Amino acid sequence: MPYIPVEEHLPGITGLLEYRKDSAEPIRDLTQFLLRGPNSLTEGERELIATIVSHNNQCKFCTTAHTAAADLLYGECDTTDKVKHDLENAPLSEKMKALLVIARQVQQSGKNVTAQSVDRARQAGATDVEIHDTVLIAALFCLYNRYVDGLATLEPADPAYYGTLADRLVNHGYTRLPQGYDHLKKK
Amino acid sequence: MPYIPVEEHLPGITGLLEYRKDSAEPIRDLTQFLLRGPNSLTEGERELIATIVSHNNQCKFCTTAHTAAADLLYGECDTTDKVKHDLENAPLSEKMKALLVIARQVQQSGKNVTAQSVDRARQAGATDVEIHDTVLIAALFCLYNRYVDGLATLEPADPAYYGTLADRLVNHGYTRLPQGYDHLKKK
Repeated sequence: MPYIPVEEHLPGITGLLEYRKDSAEPIRDLTQFLLRGPNSLTEGERELIATIVSHNNQCKFCTTAHTAAADLLYGECDTTDKVKHDLENAPLSEKMKALLVIARQVQQSGKNVTAQSVDRARQAGATDVEIHDTVLIAALFCLYNRYVDGLATLEPADPAYYGTLADRLVNHGYTRLPQGYDHLKKK
Repeated sequence: MPYIPVEEHLPGITGLLEYRKDSAEPIRDLTQFLLRGPNSLTEGERELIATIVSHNNQCKFCTTAHTAAADLLYGECDTTDKVKHDLENAPLSEKMKALLVIARQVQQSGKNVTAQSVDRARQAGATDVEIHDTVLIAALFCLYNRYVDGLATLEPADPAYYGTLADRLVNHGYTRLPQGYDHLKKK
């Protein structure tokens, strides 16, 4: 049972964003800019940052949702599986592995990010903005994971929900649902 | 040395918000709404949530800044000192102590928030929105603390900076600096 009265048909973050629309807007805007805005990191790579942080925070709703979004963008499920369980052998560039190591350090604590891990990313070609965005995206998902689990939100009754959510996140992004997507709200 | 080239005269979060203005805007808007918007929790009480989370994340810049802001709002330094080191004996309402316990749990992990701590807050008169906002403010400062420390930002050279910053946060809030506050940028 969630700790506050969110709408029953809205699992995880979706009920919270409807519960307090005034705080939801800047959260949506920040996420849209960081995960879907113009960036030298692909949308898939940015979803991997969301995935690894949510996984390490053991936030089931966020992990499943962003894994599904990344899988849809990559067209396969191996990358997210490796990112979560065997990062150094993931089919990713050295730069992306190094950035995901930084994301994993941010998940633990900002203080855990080392000059060595930043150097590794830079040696592999990461730019200042990519390092910045990796840290901020990882920090943002530390917010999301705590928001979703701290209020004890529920998972969707039907796991197929995550596929529909991933389609929404990949094709429409993180801003408010456009008309025609009401089925996501009514699930 | 910060991991990315922020302006030298802008310590902590201030340099990061200037470095990437597009992501700064929704972060500022979210903070302004949660910490300064209409709310049954006072601005001081909300600064205490920021303080206890930053303290437990050991983020020196954020802890000092929000302690200074709360001290200015309370007109004394005892409350923030007790909140950080002896919460149950802080000169606060039972409701506020219960909400700060929730904030402290969110700092560790969303999963650490217990039904018992939420019940305690509710028994002491906390509303659903107050519980929601406590969790979200605590989660937001988990973002801030990781952002500030994850990029190895510097503390101000002159500790008096925090007094000026607190004055800005109390009297002008979290949105962009109005004209006439350029001295804060040039410090």
